Amino acid sequence: MITGKVAELLESTKYLQEVEVKGWVRSFRSNRFIALNDGSTINNMQCVVDYEKMNEALLKRITVGAAIKVTGTLTESLGSGQKVEIQVTNVEILGDADPEEVKYTILSPKRHTLEKLREQAHLRVRTNTFGAVMRLRSKLAFAVHSYFQQNNFHYVNTPIITGSDAEGAGEMFRVTSFDLDNIPRTEDGKVDFKEDFFGKETNLTVSGQLEGETYALGLGQIYTFGPTFRAENSNTSRHLAEFWMVEPEMAFCDLAGNMDIAEDFIKYVLKYILEHCKDDLAFLEERLANEDKAKPEAERSPMGLTDKLRFVIDNNFKRVSYTEAIDILKDSKPNKKKKFNYIIEEWGADLQSEHERYLVEKHFKCPVILFDYPANIKAFYMRLNEDGKTVRAMDILFPGIGEIVGGSQREERLDVLTKKMQALGIDEKELWWYLDTRRFGTCVHSGFGLGFERLVQFATGMGNIRDVIPFPRTPLNAEF
Amino acid sequence: MITGKVAELLESTKYLQEVEVKGWVRSFRSNRFIALNDGSTINNMQCVVDYEKMNEALLKRITVGAAIKVTGTLTESLGSGQKVEIQVTNVEILGDADPEEVKYTILSPKRHTLEKLREQAHLRVRTNTFGAVMRLRSKLAFAVHSYFQQNNFHYVNTPIITGSDAEGAGEMFRVTSFDLDNIPRTEDGKVDFKEDFFGKETNLTVSGQLEGETYALGLGQIYTFGPTFRAENSNTSRHLAEFWMVEPEMAFCDLAGNMDIAEDFIKYVLKYILEHCKDDLAFLEERLANEDKAKPEAERSPMGLTDKLRFVIDNNFKRVSYTEAIDILKDSKPNKKKKFNYIIEEWGADLQSEHERYLVEKHFKCPVILFDYPANIKAFYMRLNEDGKTVRAMDILFPGIGEIVGGSQREERLDVLTKKMQALGIDEKELWWYLDTRRFGTCVHSGFGLGFERLVQFATGMGNIRDVIPFPRTPLNAEF
Repeated sequence: MITGKVAELLESTKYLQEVEVKGWVRSFRSNRFIALNDGSTINNMQCVVDYEKMNEALLKRITVGAAIKVTGTLTESLGSGQKVEIQVTNVEILGDADPEEVKYTILSPKRHTLEKLREQAHLRVRTNTFGAVMRLRSKLAFAVHSYFQQNNFHYVNTPIITGSDAEGAGEMFRVTSFDLDNIPRTEDGKVDFKEDFFGKETNLTVSGQLEGETYALGLGQIYTFGPTFRAENSNTSRHLAEFWMVEPEMAFCDLAGNMDIAEDFIKYVLKYILEHCKDDLAFLEERLANEDKAKPEAERSPMGLTDKLRFVIDNNFKRVSYTEAIDILKDSKPNKKKKFNYIIEEWGADLQSEHERYLVEKHFKCPVILFDYPANIKAFYMRLNEDGKTVRAMDILFPGIGEIVGGSQREERLDVLTKKMQALGIDEKELWWYLDTRRFGTCVHSGFGLGFERLVQFATGMGNIRDVIPFPRTPLNAEF
Repeated sequence: MITGKVAELLESTKYLQEVEVKGWVRSFRSNRFIALNDGSTINNMQCVVDYEKMNEALLKRITVGAAIKVTGTLTESLGSGQKVEIQVTNVEILGDADPEEVKYTILSPKRHTLEKLREQAHLRVRTNTFGAVMRLRSKLAFAVHSYFQQNNFHYVNTPIITGSDAEGAGEMFRVTSFDLDNIPRTEDGKVDFKEDFFGKETNLTVSGQLEGETYALGLGQIYTFGPTFRAENSNTSRHLAEFWMVEPEMAFCDLAGNMDIAEDFIKYVLKYILEHCKDDLAFLEERLANEDKAKPEAERSPMGLTDKLRFVIDNNFKRVSYTEAIDILKDSKPNKKKKFNYIIEEWGADLQSEHERYLVEKHFKCPVILFDYPANIKAFYMRLNEDGKTVRAMDILFPGIGEIVGGSQREERLDVLTKKMQALGIDEKELWWYLDTRRFGTCVHSGFGLGFERLVQFATGMGNIRDVIPFPRTPLNAEF
């Protein structure tokens, strides 16, 4: 008797052997064909029942969503689509799924909208689409770790709860152990944070970069991969209040080296899933194509899913300065014809997704790395160029989604950095430890951040970021 | 010219070639021998300076903590300890470290206590001990991912911010976007959580298990690896308010299978670091031995670090029921002579670390898996045995630290589970989604949790859990 997962058995050629497999019923056609799935692959095992030999009461319990154990003989399949099937000798019901109850859930065998599936996020992973997305997400996460470990980066867990709120990357969530009905106050009526768990105000991190830098300046090359948070009331298909971020940081690395690593990294992880997620990608490719067909022609994607991945893997990323990009955009048709929602009028403008996509999809027709942005639209820690007005920032732009990576060479010069912080009103005392790294053996260093869910969106073709994380957190939604 | 990391160059045999290497000065002896470290390994590159040919002003800037670039010729080293060294032709100062300032930091070349190092957690990774610990932590994390990915488990990111507080694993931190000075109230004066970011009360997760179960019951085998939180005022060397947890969950797997996987997993990850962290382990072994020498003999560890790792890898874990363990403990010398702080008097007692260690270190002399604990000292979701008083729980006990893994077969029967929840006053409406998994295709399933920092402690021999995570969070401490 061979006990196996569906994924293994589908690859097996041990015909005529007795096998046992457990999983959930995806469909049961003609009282004869059970499509059994156990999550190990998107493919189902076809289990062929001889209903004349089966107990009728048992047959009735083989319903969509039920957990069953099947034993039988592995045989070559005559139908197309798969090589093997199981001629069933016995079915055991492990857990029923009453059709009268199932019909109120997304397990019921009909089309459900993605919105509906989101409401039942605890069950949606049992559908083809979410099974595929979540298996791919897992493989992509492993590819991230594999890339950095192979290249001698050290994984660092920067703190989630942080006492510093100096980065200014966005609105932060507060963390407290206070009973909100009964908050301790000082004599003058203010909240007495000395009484809180950490003895001070604390927040959820928006980025591990600053702490990551302190580690890069000792371990050389590090990366973080953990959750980050934004308390921004953005109810869009691109924003989550809780998302996972990858943030490598390299000592002795300038902006050019930073771009090299980012490009190499992205190509590696996408190649990895092309190799390791063939079946799930094939399904997602078809899903996206079908979704596209329902759209007006102008909104359809010019590329299929695999083509988009190959577009990134096979092209050199074009490196273009912000200043060049502004010139291109100013001269572009959509700008002159006022088709952009935001018309580019002068140097210094912050680029929108429509501009980024124009550069990638229409002008250069390859992934683009923009660099040397105006200092005043970028963060305080980015290295000032000799021109005194641009900083060594870089953003990587992708088709369909625009910015996928944002990074920079960091300002390593203590005097320049403190001057900048003073100008922006950032408290030096708050960041004493960050400044220490510029005091003791400072050096050129760089890093970047990649929003992991954006990458999963790109790799799966899912349009809404809520559909690439198991339990999305968004304004007014923290169910499960 | 070969540009390389210290780790690569130390393995190189390209003698007489010109090389370039960047790093931080660990020491500079006799105006002649620079020990250069770049974080890629615990070992330093010896760079031999001919001080008579060097600019004197430059020589003075080669100080402990400075970042420098060295060029020179790679030669076979005549001294013991390493195979190669660099005959320096040029030194460039990248970032100074003024000895007058360094002397107030832990970078100064003298012994600092671990407590002192903790206060400068942003610099401590530049010391041998913390470099070794953090490199090993990184490798161990990758081993965790590698094990599960090789065994076809899917990585799942369960939510960090959660609206459910039903698990009861401990005190939770509240998450809010309210201005604590100005909390919206309902007409009857209560906090109006409808106005908060998520429209309800939210907390930081204490475990991803319940959400993980919903994914295992679709994807088959999953694991989580992410931060978890406890707002407990425990100021001990074993507790953190923020720590990382590994939680696998397997459908169609009973308690015996759960034990098999846990044992196999732990052996795999420890073997992995024995293979991949030789130099760091050798250093940590010696560090631990030196620390031990300073202790009274009775408190010294009977095993060195590698011996402890081998003790776990080479022994079968002994599986013992709670009931057997209680009998053994009742009859034990320390119990009869009242040497235990908590005397074991009867069945039902909760075991303390001293009892767990007695079983592992004195009685069985191997790692131990205790199982079938009394239901009333374990969580609501554990599967009730036929005896009606024990549950299918298991804890894995290690030398030195006691419990390292806690797991169970989950209660998959809807009626038994709801009865248990009612008895404990757990709101079924809160956990509607968890109960759904028992309604639709429920099945035998199991999982366990491993506190990652406990494992890093075990693998590094560090006594205080604050020294195995980059920026520890504990009561009154959220610096950095």
